[in-house]
Amino acid sequence: MPPHAGPIANVSSSPYAPKYTDSLSRLTNWSIIESTLREGEQFANAFFDTAKKIEIAKALDDFGVEYIEITSPAASEQSRLDCIAIANLGLKAKILTHVRCHMDDARIACETGVDGLDVVIGTSSYLREFSHGKDMERIIKDATEVINYVKSKGLEVRFSSEDSFRSDLVDLLNLYKAVDQLGVNRVGIADTVGCANPRQVYDLVKTLRSVLKPTTDIECHFHNDTGCATANAYAALEAGATHIDTSVLGIGERNGITPIGNLIARMFTVDPDYVASKYKLHQLRDLENLIADAVEIQVPFNNCITGYCAFTHKAGIHAKAILNNPATYEILKPEVFGMTRYVSIGHRLTGWNAVKNRAEQLGLALSDDDLKAITGKIKKLADIKNQSMEDVDGLLRNFHAYKVAGDHSAIEQLLVLPEAAAAAAAAATPEAVAA
Amino acid sequence: MPPHAGPIANVSSSPYAPKYTDSLSRLTNWSIIESTLREGEQFANAFFDTAKKIEIAKALDDFGVEYIEITSPAASEQSRLDCIAIANLGLKAKILTHVRCHMDDARIACETGVDGLDVVIGTSSYLREFSHGKDMERIIKDATEVINYVKSKGLEVRFSSEDSFRSDLVDLLNLYKAVDQLGVNRVGIADTVGCANPRQVYDLVKTLRSVLKPTTDIECHFHNDTGCATANAYAALEAGATHIDTSVLGIGERNGITPIGNLIARMFTVDPDYVASKYKLHQLRDLENLIADAVEIQVPFNNCITGYCAFTHKAGIHAKAILNNPATYEILKPEVFGMTRYVSIGHRLTGWNAVKNRAEQLGLALSDDDLKAITGKIKKLADIKNQSMEDVDGLLRNFHAYKVAGDHSAIEQLLVLPEAAAAAAAAATPEAVAA
Repeated sequence: MPPHAGPIANVSSSPYAPKYTDSLSRLTNWSIIESTLREGEQFANAFFDTAKKIEIAKALDDFGVEYIEITSPAASEQSRLDCIAIANLGLKAKILTHVRCHMDDARIACETGVDGLDVVIGTSSYLREFSHGKDMERIIKDATEVINYVKSKGLEVRFSSEDSFRSDLVDLLNLYKAVDQLGVNRVGIADTVGCANPRQVYDLVKTLRSVLKPTTDIECHFHNDTGCATANAYAALEAGATHIDTSVLGIGERNGITPIGNLIARMFTVDPDYVASKYKLHQLRDLENLIADAVEIQVPFNNCITGYCAFTHKAGIHAKAILNNPATYEILKPEVFGMTRYVSIGHRLTGWNAVKNRAEQLGLALSDDDLKAITGKIKKLADIKNQSMEDVDGLLRNFHAYKVAGDHSAIEQLLVLPEAAAAAAAAATPEAVAA
Repeated sequence: MPPHAGPIANVSSSPYAPKYTDSLSRLTNWSIIESTLREGEQFANAFFDTAKKIEIAKALDDFGVEYIEITSPAASEQSRLDCIAIANLGLKAKILTHVRCHMDDARIACETGVDGLDVVIGTSSYLREFSHGKDMERIIKDATEVINYVKSKGLEVRFSSEDSFRSDLVDLLNLYKAVDQLGVNRVGIADTVGCANPRQVYDLVKTLRSVLKPTTDIECHFHNDTGCATANAYAALEAGATHIDTSVLGIGERNGITPIGNLIARMFTVDPDYVASKYKLHQLRDLENLIADAVEIQVPFNNCITGYCAFTHKAGIHAKAILNNPATYEILKPEVFGMTRYVSIGHRLTGWNAVKNRAEQLGLALSDDDLKAITGKIKKLADIKNQSMEDVDGLLRNFHAYKVAGDHSAIEQLLVLPEAAAAAAAAATPEAVAA
């Protein structure tokens, strides 16, 4: 879809969407090029046999990604056979393979049955020569031959530079303009070394957008060496990029690229309905577990959405607010992703509103003063060791039973605190700790 | 240091630094407020006893962080005692504690011996009321009392809002201007829910900078729910923020905040000498391991710098370029961080230049044709199973020995390939796979 075709879709379905978007923005109209089977195969631990590749391709397709990119058939004989196998699975997703701008590779790739070729200038020396004006004809000659050949076969073709953010801007624009004239479907920008930052990405994509035909798509590929691969993808879409390269958990060369789960978390905040309409979000965790098992890694504790504590709330003030209205501290809805919220209350940072909520869940009627006294006791115990939910429940149930029985001395015994701890407990109210 | 004091430092020591920086930029003049002992204590798994807190504080201090933020002494009695213990260790880093804008908390905190208080408006209802114009006097009254009290004790004071990116801009600016007039040292912006994106951060910080006195510092705190905490920190510094909150490995509420290692990776690309002059970078891995052990998590496989494959290169074209010049695919120098580079060659994506380099390391003289033949064999074997470095070395040594002995039939035997694999190997050259 041409990016300049008209005003962009209304993004008001989320309070986190930009208040005003500019005419270039593709924040609500973008596609994923899922590269777990290409970039991901370059991950240190990755070795996918044919059966595993097919399992991954089917899982990605079922999840809903628009494109699946696979390793070049020129890499090895098995790579070629796997390429043919995946291209002929009859998936909904389009299948791409990633090849150098050489006729040898293009011929092999076009015989595999893929839907398109992601063509890359395979050596940065090309660009270096280009920058000295020496080899313009050679690039154009190679590109013309390859692009015309791929198009003659009725396949999609993308043309990308490598290490785009360390290349001379004028060289880059000349190159992209030339291949655009040759009729490529997409051009690609690659932050091959992970050096780019979001404002730089925004500026380059915006400039590139103004050089290309309106119907030419822009694909972006970001490495994560300095932790910006997700934010860079977002900045690219703000500036008019149309396709983002991802891999599951971000696996790839070195510490990898934009993780598909991160991109989804980021874009969900802009337009949850659009994202939910494209992808089966409750399958994200299974998809990540499939890859984690295949390459023998653990899902990082701090993974967006599916990290094991991504929806765990602990600080007193957070727990209180979450219990009143989850939206106060959650911008992603755990249930949409098949996850559950957990409010942790058995620790020294707890607050009495969280304890009150737990008492209500247990059906125990206790006054605010009672609950504040119990909270003081929890804090004292938690100063020694975190308390489990069972510990907290036991304390609440015992207190309630003594209360019903009118056994004031048992209650006193239950709450007994040394003087210093009592003073601290009195001072500690639920808002004592904030984000 | 006032941000408008003059032209910013020359940032040309890195080719990845912005070509032109604006006058607001603090990319080469910023400080860390390390919050592993405050935000980090809100991580689901965290329970630090006194000895562990002291060990962590000393490790952070030795690493070189400018500030260490610790849990409010009002949270529990042990928290108060720990606050006193850490404040009296005599560390080079300044010690801050994080308290609500209440006189009760301020009094307790000022008795602990800390260097400063990070004061936060503890409930977002404050701001909501403020936004309806109802409670301006109450905020100003509370803030005046607390700020004057803390200043009368000779301590630093920071005043922060909560959930700044979902607050009304005019309310925020009114609030910050008011506390600025009261003489705070720093104001704080907090993306409490992790909804912010870099352009939004840049705009808010830039606007805030224009409202405050030039001598008032700006501290920023970013949660990582949508994977942008590192890029947001960078955008904040671009716009004139002076202090970034971090924790080791990013531990904190939910999936945490800006990890100190990510921030260092990001900022190292801008000015490596400045970053190396402030922090003992070769201790980063030990610091992360200390925290990972304390909260019983694994360092994520994709962690910046210290992730176990952050400096592993695999694709043929990458391996070739890295062997020629590491800077082609590495923007961080592994040796600076006590890490080592690893070029993986025993897989189907390998290239003959990488194999040639290994032969040279082993002191084996082989022709390019020999090396291409051996590379074909490695690809064939790796199509079945990844080959270890020992496997590759064995193949090279055997080939070389047969060559020296003139045993052509042994070489033929060594390289024997079925026809299909031979064809693929012939097609596969080192640039067959690119980033």
